[in-house]
Amino acid sequence: MKVSARNAFKGSITAIHPGAVNAEVTLKTKGGDVLVAIVTEGSVKSLGLAVGKEVVALAKAPWVMLAAGDNKLKFSARNQLNGKVSTLVKGAVNSEVGITLPGGTEVFAVVTNEAVAELNLALGAAASAIIKSSHVILAVEA
Amino acid sequence: MKVSARNAFKGSITAIHPGAVNAEVTLKTKGGDVLVAIVTEGSVKSLGLAVGKEVVALAKAPWVMLAAGDNKLKFSARNQLNGKVSTLVKGAVNSEVGITLPGGTEVFAVVTNEAVAELNLALGAAASAIIKSSHVILAVEA
Amino acid sequence: MKVSARNAFKGSITAIHPGAVNAEVTLKTKGGDVLVAIVTEGSVKSLGLAVGKEVVALAKAPWVMLAAGDNKLKFSARNQLNGKVSTLVKGAVNSEVGITLPGGTEVFAVVTNEAVAELNLALGAAASAIIKSSHVILAVEA
Repeated sequence: MKVSARNAFKGSITAIHPGAVNAEVTLKTKGGDVLVAIVTEGSVKSLGLAVGKEVVALAKAPWVMLAAGDNKLKFSARNQLNGKVSTLVKGAVNSEVGITLPGGTEVFAVVTNEAVAELNLALGAAASAIIKSSHVILAVEA
Repeated sequence: MKVSARNAFKGSITAIHPGAVNAEVTLKTKGGDVLVAIVTEGSVKSLGLAVGKEVVALAKAPWVMLAAGDNKLKFSARNQLNGKVSTLVKGAVNSEVGITLPGGTEVFAVVTNEAVAELNLALGAAASAIIKSSHVILAVEA
Repeated sequence: MKVSARNAFKGSITAIHPGAVNAEVTLKTKGGDVLVAIVTEGSVKSLGLAVGKEVVALAKAPWVMLAAGDNKLKFSARNQLNGKVSTLVKGAVNSEVGITLPGGTEVFAVVTNEAVAELNLALGAAASAIIKSSHVILAVEA
């Protein structure tokens, strides 16, 4: 997978909801984790997207927001991926945090060290990775 | 507020303009600062968004672009938030810059140190925080 | 250009495809490089966007994803800008990578050092800068 995005989720399309300009594409990984992407109708045609087709959903780590497991909020972002902290690498300013979902997918976010402290993120802690569906890029084998 | 986003603006909804797929939601903070978010119609329903409802607008600091106060440009981004530099923390490569708006909201951006120099950003200087409305995530108490 | 975005591409509009809420705006730089932005119809009106008008397309470097030149993928992102690596500045965690396009435009991305290694990015290597059109902000002189 020769792409710089830290998050590259392989799955097959389970639903496409078309709109005038944009389409909402849902995919499921082998492990059963579900992701939603919004792409243009032009991309649906040029990539030949259809239910059952294999795709890769791409998102860079700085595009991912984290919420603590005990947060009491509902989000407008379609992808609220609940799991447990499985990777925690602290840098001088930012940390890379990996959240493993029930289906086995690990989602990576880059957040500030202050956020890691405020959210009490530690290995094994419950947390959610939140990704706006309009931030997700889809790719298919050419 | 257990979310990693550096920017979390509390306010109440003042307008919702519905579309086929997306809706444009305007909120006003207690201090009177205004923000616009674009979310899907699905989120409008699932979060029960309506005029008067309390919401939180979320945006990570790397999603925020800055413009100098004397720039002569108009932007397609709906959120052009004019204020004064109130926080300036330099790192090795990037700086965190806070802009306080007239209503008291402080908006944080992460930009390169080169940008801080080029824009002559200093405490008290006029500057604008620019956020594309499709980058803003809304949250409500569950 | 008093804006913090690392990528500021001057060009003139060659096409506008209107939608109900959003419009797709295509611009071409003097050198012939082409970029696509999605902005709201409201912005098309307020900025007076029209074919032939001079605009600047803005994108922060962390919003840009990179793909190796020999990747076999097709992407939903409208901007897949193929060129050669012309700048490579390594930091402790991230690198800044510049890709020069055939028309002379240099596009900058910030990616992790691991990605630089995995993609074999080196000066002169073929690479693609991938930018989702909904991430691009347009600006015009006021």
